[in-house]
Amino acid sequence: MRDLFKLIVAWIVVTASCSLHAGAALEHPRLLLTSDGVEFIRANLGSAPLFDESLRNVKAEVDKELALGIDVPIPRDFSGGYTHERHKRNFFVAQKAALLYQILGESRYGDYVRDMLLEYAALYPTLPVHPKERSYARGRLFWQCLNDANWLLYMAQAYDAVYDYLKEEDRELLERDLFRPFADFISLGNPKFFNRIHNHSAWGNAAVGMIGVAMGDEELIDRALYGFEASIDSQARDNDGGLIWTQGQGRGFLANLDAPFSPDGYYTEGPYYQRYAMYPFLAFSIAMENAYPDRKVLQQKNTVLVKATYALLNLADSQGEFFPMNDAQKGMSITNSSLVAAVDAAYLYGHRDSALLSVALEQGQVSLDQSGMAVALAIEEGRAEPFTKRSIILRDGPRGEQGGVAVLRDPEAGLEAVFKFSGHGLSHGHFDRLGIAIHDNGREVLQDYGLVRFVNIEQKGGGNYLPENKSWAKQTVASNTLVVDGQSQFDGDYDASSRHHSELVFSDIGNDAIQIVSAQEVNAYEATVVQRTVALVRSPQNNVVVVDLVRAESDGAHTYDLPFHYLGQVIHTNFSPISDDQRRALGTDDGYEHLWLEAVGKPTDSSAKFTWLDGGRFNTITTAAEEGDELLLVRLGANDPDFNLRRDPSLIIRRETDRRAILASTIQSHGGYDPVSEAAVDVSGDIDDIKVVSSAKGYSVAQISWTSGIVSWLFVANGDGSKGVRHQLELEGRLYKWEGPYLWIPGF
Amino acid sequence: MRDLFKLIVAWIVVTASCSLHAGAALEHPRLLLTSDGVEFIRANLGSAPLFDESLRNVKAEVDKELALGIDVPIPRDFSGGYTHERHKRNFFVAQKAALLYQILGESRYGDYVRDMLLEYAALYPTLPVHPKERSYARGRLFWQCLNDANWLLYMAQAYDAVYDYLKEEDRELLERDLFRPFADFISLGNPKFFNRIHNHSAWGNAAVGMIGVAMGDEELIDRALYGFEASIDSQARDNDGGLIWTQGQGRGFLANLDAPFSPDGYYTEGPYYQRYAMYPFLAFSIAMENAYPDRKVLQQKNTVLVKATYALLNLADSQGEFFPMNDAQKGMSITNSSLVAAVDAAYLYGHRDSALLSVALEQGQVSLDQSGMAVALAIEEGRAEPFTKRSIILRDGPRGEQGGVAVLRDPEAGLEAVFKFSGHGLSHGHFDRLGIAIHDNGREVLQDYGLVRFVNIEQKGGGNYLPENKSWAKQTVASNTLVVDGQSQFDGDYDASSRHHSELVFSDIGNDAIQIVSAQEVNAYEATVVQRTVALVRSPQNNVVVVDLVRAESDGAHTYDLPFHYLGQVIHTNFSPISDDQRRALGTDDGYEHLWLEAVGKPTDSSAKFTWLDGGRFNTITTAAEEGDELLLVRLGANDPDFNLRRDPSLIIRRETDRRAILASTIQSHGGYDPVSEAAVDVSGDIDDIKVVSSAKGYSVAQISWTSGIVSWLFVANGDGSKGVRHQLELEGRLYKWEGPYLWIPGF
Repeated sequence: MRDLFKLIVAWIVVTASCSLHAGAALEHPRLLLTSDGVEFIRANLGSAPLFDESLRNVKAEVDKELALGIDVPIPRDFSGGYTHERHKRNFFVAQKAALLYQILGESRYGDYVRDMLLEYAALYPTLPVHPKERSYARGRLFWQCLNDANWLLYMAQAYDAVYDYLKEEDRELLERDLFRPFADFISLGNPKFFNRIHNHSAWGNAAVGMIGVAMGDEELIDRALYGFEASIDSQARDNDGGLIWTQGQGRGFLANLDAPFSPDGYYTEGPYYQRYAMYPFLAFSIAMENAYPDRKVLQQKNTVLVKATYALLNLADSQGEFFPMNDAQKGMSITNSSLVAAVDAAYLYGHRDSALLSVALEQGQVSLDQSGMAVALAIEEGRAEPFTKRSIILRDGPRGEQGGVAVLRDPEAGLEAVFKFSGHGLSHGHFDRLGIAIHDNGREVLQDYGLVRFVNIEQKGGGNYLPENKSWAKQTVASNTLVVDGQSQFDGDYDASSRHHSELVFSDIGNDAIQIVSAQEVNAYEATVVQRTVALVRSPQNNVVVVDLVRAESDGAHTYDLPFHYLGQVIHTNFSPISDDQRRALGTDDGYEHLWLEAVGKPTDSSAKFTWLDGGRFNTITTAAEEGDELLLVRLGANDPDFNLRRDPSLIIRRETDRRAILASTIQSHGGYDPVSEAAVDVSGDIDDIKVVSSAKGYSVAQISWTSGIVSWLFVANGDGSKGVRHQLELEGRLYKWEGPYLWIPGF
Repeated sequence: MRDLFKLIVAWIVVTASCSLHAGAALEHPRLLLTSDGVEFIRANLGSAPLFDESLRNVKAEVDKELALGIDVPIPRDFSGGYTHERHKRNFFVAQKAALLYQILGESRYGDYVRDMLLEYAALYPTLPVHPKERSYARGRLFWQCLNDANWLLYMAQAYDAVYDYLKEEDRELLERDLFRPFADFISLGNPKFFNRIHNHSAWGNAAVGMIGVAMGDEELIDRALYGFEASIDSQARDNDGGLIWTQGQGRGFLANLDAPFSPDGYYTEGPYYQRYAMYPFLAFSIAMENAYPDRKVLQQKNTVLVKATYALLNLADSQGEFFPMNDAQKGMSITNSSLVAAVDAAYLYGHRDSALLSVALEQGQVSLDQSGMAVALAIEEGRAEPFTKRSIILRDGPRGEQGGVAVLRDPEAGLEAVFKFSGHGLSHGHFDRLGIAIHDNGREVLQDYGLVRFVNIEQKGGGNYLPENKSWAKQTVASNTLVVDGQSQFDGDYDASSRHHSELVFSDIGNDAIQIVSAQEVNAYEATVVQRTVALVRSPQNNVVVVDLVRAESDGAHTYDLPFHYLGQVIHTNFSPISDDQRRALGTDDGYEHLWLEAVGKPTDSSAKFTWLDGGRFNTITTAAEEGDELLLVRLGANDPDFNLRRDPSLIIRRETDRRAILASTIQSHGGYDPVSEAAVDVSGDIDDIKVVSSAKGYSVAQISWTSGIVSWLFVANGDGSKGVRHQLELEGRLYKWEGPYLWIPGF
């Protein structure tokens, strides 16, 4: 019986999915849900527990709102305020209620959506632009067009799903008084918002396109896909300081799909905004696939949206939280509803990858559409396989030509090192080229600060970006990368930074003994070439250690600061820091004005060592020291009148030199402390010492002495990443020869 | 079948436990394990999964050590160092191996214990006192006698369990060369250590007593129970500054059982040290019960040790972590092995309380003795019932006459308010009378700092107490209680503080609408009476709110500081703090030297409001403000050259007045923030305003205005806690009459 049942289910999945791809242009619903899809879902209710559970939860949520009744208030607030949150809640709930109407066929859900839409149709024509004046593109329901676009994209789905339930005169009224003027306002009425290459525009384009598909209005669909002619001041900027328009850039949905996504599916604004943009990209692409399959929107750029879903999953740490690159609020994870939709869609519209099923299980819910049902059925059939994240390099740039991001992983140890050598990342980018971040089983060992914003907490500046996002988070010293002469990269000039990108020099991530990536930045500082090489190696004690070589070549004397943004309590240093009793800010600009100087140490040994305890783990940075180096212990919080910054600590290695500088360090998380047994295990780690033993002729050679007595060497041939090139270097009377850009001699 | 089996098991439990109480003085083993107990255990192996699992885990751990072989190194290190950790591990493993020998009957475990003991017998006579000179009572295996006593207590059990396995000549040699001189050294050789009233002595007494029982040496048993005559300098102090000897105090195990435990089972040093002391207290008492039941040691003070186990469980937060009162390392919890032994023993030797079984389940393990088996069998029989922690007041002092500690709980909301009005707490006490701490589902809303020590982390001052424990953690400003004129209570004088205690004035914790406790301190500050009243009330929105009234009456002008030690990020204040750009330490002594002043605000409304975000929850302090009040935002970390302190923040309400001061506040945890949905719920809480509307004639009246528009009043008749007394007070033209020390008018 059971097997027979499974066969039937499998058959249904196959046939259903075939028909799903066939398109159903003239029927409603036709966006994410199709009439065939509804049949498929209804036929399988009760057979796919994860779908049934998701349905139950959504039903409970919507029923609660139905009981509360509809409220469509006059717009007034920033995010976090009542009117903002109510309108936001309205479109979420209306879309869900409409799905319930389709799946369960209960008229009360149809009535609810109809009544709400009619209230909006009565209100909308009376509305001026939103009273809050902060945005470069103010909406009418919300303080910015972006949120109006969110509304329209969800309401298009709601409308589509109850379309056949509505009387024709209601449909006419809604389209005339609400949807068409709404779509025109956020597009024709706001070219700066609609015609950009930016996640804002992706939302705007998709929203207009979705309502176009729902209404069968091909003019709106074309406007969505290609934008429209309009002149934009070449100096116009958005609220984050990003340029609105650059000569020669594309516009519309297809251009937004093309430019910010790389061929690997990396979105140049980073995973936090990619997560936000995934939903409109996918929703409109799938709507087009369902209703106008011949226009092949989903297939654009080699079906980049499916790749983008994998890229996003790979840019999450071992606990599923996204690496907070660029402007990113920490804690955002693969369980976000946008990722639920993306994973389900990537399963059904991609190649039915069983590994995505285990991600869906981790998410604990599926979308209430055909892709969600396909996923839930496959899970019920036991087809889920682990989604294993391995080391990966994702290229940035429309053609993959603008550097990229590497994630070195040791899944067994749970260690992940993120290394960023991409383009600027549009207006949400930071001046953090060649920055790294390290995660140990989801805990931040070296953190990326993320953004300075409390999204949707109205009490903190209306929930918007706070001034310290620019003065701290975007600055170079806020990231784990080299700062030259106390200045941010490109002197903090967004336009200059946007014209350039770092370059991958070489990588080798398919190796058991060592995984290594090296990248170069030549534009960020005048006449200065910085190359950083990051490797995961196994110690003789079989622990994973990050080796980090930062090499700067310049033509004059400079001060090099290499910050390491740790978290937790200092356990040990070998450089006896002297406290600064009258605490001063470390500088006056470029982020330094936010750092209190807590103490300064001088190296007393060939390596400076710094051990801290955080979350039950010990962590040690060991860095090759030179005479004159300073080790600064600093803490965030100076010049922060509104207490917008976390009081996080950092260690800064400072070197003044008129020669090249090589800052060679190891970073290891080791041992642990259990407050219940009070047992401290491996407090010191595996590294005794690290030295730079050669920096001649473009080579960097670091020698690592392990506590076990064994010595290892890492040779890097800087500048030239070619695999076939032969190198040789004499070192302490011995000649080393090798082929390719690096040589690792573990010595054991 | 299953029921029959259960009956048999139940019968075995009953008969076994009867015989367990009968004693078996002449047989071995006779300490925690008895020969009847071993039979009982063997008969039930395979029937009690939790016991079987604990046995498997211990066996795996011991087998690993057997494979490594025995190492008995020459003592050299502080805790955290190799020789310390090795000797510590040795006694833990030897005791466990000996239990395995008894339970499994495998000779290899007997051989391991014998061989290790013989190595110690060869080493011990050659040892001088330990080379580290820090302790007031240096040991020989360890840097302090305390650790030597740990060793002896565990090794006594190991010896007892393999006694019959050893040849008589081995026994003679071990007793002559090892055990007797060892017992003599930590007792006769160290009267300051052995003859105190202190957890150190409890360990020493119990260790000597245990080896006495194992060897059948009644002289040692008597020495353990009663101490011995020795003169101790009345000015002698231990390393924590505690007095060793006070005229007229008792000595020995029975005195240690009598003095620090209150009749309610509260141990005056607080739960962290109680946890540490429970094991020797229980172990020796049970050994006496098993071997010398007629001496009725276990029954002392109304079987206080069973009460003490309940007291400890009640002094843990909703997640099982102990409230870090006095010197206490955070994170210590009811899963500690000492608590496993205590809970199992309290079950078998107490009244077989089924609620203890659910605690054992939470602990996930049982002791490998008859009490552990009795617990595991009862669990398997499905007898476990929930252990519900309710509000409780535990008296302090040998006769319960020295104030106490209250824990107000709302289990439904997960809120717990700890209020301390006890004696000083011996050398581990803090100057924190009338201090509070608030926990919200295990998260600290207002924290008790705990201790400044990294137990067993050698890199931090040998794992010992650090200077900042005295200069910060013990000081009054480090706790959430009133500081008068910037000075610690009793001017930081330990002896003076030890002579006094606070007094409970009244309490009413059996009430649904309000739970309330009021206590008074009249000695800590000259000519100043401080009364604090702490209540949990339900808001009109049915949320739990802490109401806190601190009333100080004095004869002159004073500066009153009330610190609130919050954790997390500032979200909102209504008092516009002005940052102090050249950060200064707030003072020069009494803990103030460790606080950086970050900003100062002045109240702009009748209440000062302060909201912060921590662990996904919003929290708000609302405090009745007077003109001239200052609101100081401070942060720990000044004058901390070794980075021993966490950089935690605090809000200090500062009032200068020449009249009485009433500091009235509400503290609420409310709503929450989810970084995945980015939804902020209830950012502001339920309180609009709190005012002191009367402070006349010994009355304190606070008026709370809720955001719902409702107004509530709390009347407190200070000083007199009598229930029957009638009060009346005219307020804004209305006469209020009530009976008893307080009146709560919710107004809804």
